[in-house]
Amino acid sequence: MPHIALESHLPGITGLLEYRQDTAQPIRELTQILLRGESTLTEGERELIATLVSSQNQCKFCTTAHTAAANILLGETETCEMVKKDFESAPVSEKMKALLAIASHVQQSGKNVTSQDIERAKVAGASDREIHDTVLIAALFCLYNKYVDGLASVTPAEPAFYEKLGQRITTNGYNRVPAIYEQLKKEVQA
Amino acid sequence: MPHIALESHLPGITGLLEYRQDTAQPIRELTQILLRGESTLTEGERELIATLVSSQNQCKFCTTAHTAAANILLGETETCEMVKKDFESAPVSEKMKALLAIASHVQQSGKNVTSQDIERAKVAGASDREIHDTVLIAALFCLYNKYVDGLASVTPAEPAFYEKLGQRITTNGYNRVPAIYEQLKKEVQA
Repeated sequence: MPHIALESHLPGITGLLEYRQDTAQPIRELTQILLRGESTLTEGERELIATLVSSQNQCKFCTTAHTAAANILLGETETCEMVKKDFESAPVSEKMKALLAIASHVQQSGKNVTSQDIERAKVAGASDREIHDTVLIAALFCLYNKYVDGLASVTPAEPAFYEKLGQRITTNGYNRVPAIYEQLKKEVQA
Repeated sequence: MPHIALESHLPGITGLLEYRQDTAQPIRELTQILLRGESTLTEGERELIATLVSSQNQCKFCTTAHTAAANILLGETETCEMVKKDFESAPVSEKMKALLAIASHVQQSGKNVTSQDIERAKVAGASDREIHDTVLIAALFCLYNKYVDGLASVTPAEPAFYEKLGQRITTNGYNRVPAIYEQLKKEVQA
């Protein structure tokens, strides 16, 4: 049971973003810019960063949701599974491995990002902007994971829930689509 | 030296927010709503939550800046020092101690917030909204601390820097004031 009263048909982050829509708006906007905005990293690569951090924070809701999104964007499920298990041996570029190493360290503590981490990323071709965005995406998903688990929001068990959510965030992105919330409410009332 | 090229006259978070203004805008907006918007928690109480979390993350820049802000808002320096050292014995209300305990657990992991933490806060009179905001402020400052330290932004040594910054964020809040950045640039060029 969540620590505060949330709408029971909106599990995980979805009920929290509806609970306080004024704070949700900039959180959604930041996520939309970082994960869907213009970038030299693909949307799939950015979802992998979000998934790795959520996995390291053991946030089951966010890990499962962003795994679903990454799988849809990458068109296969193996890469994301390997990134969560051991990103150094995952079938991603050297640059992505270096960026995932940075994200992994940010999850532990900002102080754990070393000059060697940065050097490795730059040698592999990462730009300042890619390093910046990797750090900020990792920090943002620590916010999400702490928000979702800190208020004990509900984690659905059914894979179908995350499939649907993954479809939503790869199709509509992270902005609020009022029609979706109206539809979800109708489904509960039916 | 920062891990990416930042303007050298803008240390800590200030240079990062200028580096990518499109992502900075929603971060500033979220902070302004949570720390300066309508709330049953005072601005000083909310700055104490920000300071405790930053202190636990050992982010010197954020801890010193928000200590300065809290001290200005509270009109004294003792409370904030005691909150950082041992908030259970600090001269704050029982409700604030319970909320600081929640924030402290969020900093460790969202999963560390227990039903007992929540029960304690509710018995002490905390509303769902206050609990929600405490968790989100704590999560937001984890984002800030990881952003600031993850990119190795500069931490000024001079107390005068933080005094000025504390004045700015208690007077202008967290929105971007272009005149301040123009002034800082002029001071460097002078």
